[in-house]
Amino acid sequence: MQTRIAVSDSDIDEVDDSAAITAVQSSRRDFLRRGVAAGGLFAATATTGVYGSSAVTAHTTAVPADADTPLEIPEWSRAPGAPTGGQPYGQPSAYEKKVIRHLRPNDKQYISSSTRTPIQELDGIITPNGLFYERHHGGVPEIDPAQHRLALHGLVDRPLLFTMDDLRRFPSESHIYFLECSGNPGYNVYGKTAAEANGLVSCAEWTGVPLRTVLAEAGVQAQAKWIVAEGADAAAMTRSIPIEKCLEDALLVYSQNGERLRPEQGYPLRLLLPGFEGNMSIKWLRRLHVTDKPAQSREETSKYTDPLPDGTARRFTFYMEAKSIITAPSGGQLVSKPGFNEIRGIAWSGHGKIVRVEVSVDDGKTWHEAQLQAPVLTRAITRFRYPWEWNGEATVIQSRATDETGYVQPTLEALVAVRGVNNTYHNNAITPWRVAANGEVTNARIKTG
Amino acid sequence: MQTRIAVSDSDIDEVDDSAAITAVQSSRRDFLRRGVAAGGLFAATATTGVYGSSAVTAHTTAVPADADTPLEIPEWSRAPGAPTGGQPYGQPSAYEKKVIRHLRPNDKQYISSSTRTPIQELDGIITPNGLFYERHHGGVPEIDPAQHRLALHGLVDRPLLFTMDDLRRFPSESHIYFLECSGNPGYNVYGKTAAEANGLVSCAEWTGVPLRTVLAEAGVQAQAKWIVAEGADAAAMTRSIPIEKCLEDALLVYSQNGERLRPEQGYPLRLLLPGFEGNMSIKWLRRLHVTDKPAQSREETSKYTDPLPDGTARRFTFYMEAKSIITAPSGGQLVSKPGFNEIRGIAWSGHGKIVRVEVSVDDGKTWHEAQLQAPVLTRAITRFRYPWEWNGEATVIQSRATDETGYVQPTLEALVAVRGVNNTYHNNAITPWRVAANGEVTNARIKTG
Repeated sequence: MQTRIAVSDSDIDEVDDSAAITAVQSSRRDFLRRGVAAGGLFAATATTGVYGSSAVTAHTTAVPADADTPLEIPEWSRAPGAPTGGQPYGQPSAYEKKVIRHLRPNDKQYISSSTRTPIQELDGIITPNGLFYERHHGGVPEIDPAQHRLALHGLVDRPLLFTMDDLRRFPSESHIYFLECSGNPGYNVYGKTAAEANGLVSCAEWTGVPLRTVLAEAGVQAQAKWIVAEGADAAAMTRSIPIEKCLEDALLVYSQNGERLRPEQGYPLRLLLPGFEGNMSIKWLRRLHVTDKPAQSREETSKYTDPLPDGTARRFTFYMEAKSIITAPSGGQLVSKPGFNEIRGIAWSGHGKIVRVEVSVDDGKTWHEAQLQAPVLTRAITRFRYPWEWNGEATVIQSRATDETGYVQPTLEALVAVRGVNNTYHNNAITPWRVAANGEVTNARIKTG
Repeated sequence: MQTRIAVSDSDIDEVDDSAAITAVQSSRRDFLRRGVAAGGLFAATATTGVYGSSAVTAHTTAVPADADTPLEIPEWSRAPGAPTGGQPYGQPSAYEKKVIRHLRPNDKQYISSSTRTPIQELDGIITPNGLFYERHHGGVPEIDPAQHRLALHGLVDRPLLFTMDDLRRFPSESHIYFLECSGNPGYNVYGKTAAEANGLVSCAEWTGVPLRTVLAEAGVQAQAKWIVAEGADAAAMTRSIPIEKCLEDALLVYSQNGERLRPEQGYPLRLLLPGFEGNMSIKWLRRLHVTDKPAQSREETSKYTDPLPDGTARRFTFYMEAKSIITAPSGGQLVSKPGFNEIRGIAWSGHGKIVRVEVSVDDGKTWHEAQLQAPVLTRAITRFRYPWEWNGEATVIQSRATDETGYVQPTLEALVAVRGVNNTYHNNAITPWRVAANGEVTNARIKTG
């Protein structure tokens, strides 16, 4: 097997595989079939390092391999693959085409609607941009960034009109933050899958300019108490934001996970209020009106208010409270074997960092601390993992999060006892998953049979 | 403007905008034209918080807005946008279609080739999956994950054959790491743009199982010193890895930025050796052969070795050394105005964390510390920012990184003095950008005129 010694990247390199291919073809044995007959489970050596110093055994389901039988060479190893650069902007594998945003079928219309991140298919804390959840009230506008303007006016010394170039010239910051819809999922909604239960949440690295930096250019006047933010979509989403938040960690964002915002996330510009309910992070932002009182817009009166049992309603419920959900195994999935099954999930809180996630695998009788993926970030998704040894019997698994304020994620019963049943929003209740003896996982709140 | 009070998300909400639209149409004034006549620059209030306690003035280029003139209402605000869920897997805006991976045109073939991340278009530290750089030696295979196998054999007590399901059952971890091609960009290559200069680097959150956990299942024998890793692509990329790295932070990865690996990054499985030269993080991983000596494969002898001036060659140069580059303003871009222009860039080191990035804006005469985006992560990209006040005169700007070992990124001259001119790999030299008086930015190493 001679190859020409080359110096530069673009040289064509000759590789002669014919001898290797011939050797394999002369003893084509199905590696896997032989292995399966020998049995699947091993008593494992303790794994180290993943869960700290406590020994965790992971009984692999891998089959023993016969060192004397050559590895089968599949078709994709035998011929060159697709040429480099075939996808100037890459796409997922065709084998992943089922991993898409979940859209509720058979709705009367989709102009005011939502899609859910398939959180049960994802790992880590970053949501890839193509799977970021959506919630629109007037569809998705297609905006020419060269024509888009942001007006900043009202109780300011200098009202200003910004182009996107103006905004990108400001000092920039990047932060990893979650975004969550206030109605994730709404009450009396028991999602069959994790996406349907809690999929209106995503997390990305956002880049933009701190709003306080931009406000400093305009000169906010002393009597200013609120900023009314308005979007350029057909719904002209409008929310009033306390000036304190605007001067704290609010951002004017133009990039998500490195590239420019996606149209569904507000291209070319959105407001980002870390930890606040998602609708307030106005997409397609076109106006910031500095005022001394809230606008009492439609979206903070007719919508996004929380009727209580006594007939009053909570309003201006800004922060998303601590929440968690097990994403694997979760509704619609199968726990294929007893023994070691890592429970995986996500947790987040608008009030800061998650300090603890506990997992119960015995229908809430006992709770155990899960491992939090480092680094734990403020107002971002935190991934948790728990080493579950399933005994093969029917049970219920669930998680609950505690944030840095000491607040603990409640059960649905506890939440309803306070909020009543006429709420649509801020449902951060624990989601319990039922695991049947045959391994099928369903939402424990959905009655079966 | 009456709206029906609705309880569930799918209700149709009526919004009557006709009164608002009429009011605007009755006084259609082009906001922007009036604003421009009044002049563009403001003496700014000091911005706070972005660069710490030192006051930084950002002279915005925004135009003054006339509070009495209504904001123009563009066409996309006047009609519903695209229905929600129109893109089950979202795509960038059509206005961003120029943001693609850079492919060198007119090469003789593209089976063994590369594409570059357009780093000059990106923000933050996360590279979105569709723009992740590529370097292939046999094209991109299309692999059925259900058929893909990983063989682990050699100096182990129990040789094993894994399916993808087997590997996902292991305890998982996620980490944000960079990946960089050893030839980024090669010597005697002076990229016109940042992508062409240093675009063979990207950064993502990777999820998988620690290799040491999987090795523990097989039982690595005492005499094992290396693991020879082989890919399932047509090139059968093969590299020998020291057992110490395999037992340290090496990962078997199946997800990038939350979703499954992209085909171009090794779907369904790759090795990930944090900080090592990219080719060693074998894509489409199909074999791990535990041995007591390196394979001396083609890719570690004919390729990926570094000829020195004295006729010897460095081999097994695993780690990518500390490197940085200014991504904005960079080659091919325009510094449109004097005054405040934030210099932005990225830095990384295979040896751990970046501890400092310095920027020079006077052709290397003086250096100033840039701000590092928090949190700074080990073996990940670190974003840096520097508040540059451009005086409008021709100059050269550049950055240099220092990592936690104290190593400082060298100039090209210093590197060549040691390595000679016959290297292809490990070029981590400083990239200087020339800024002309008219604001055009070019690579200072490319002679002009």
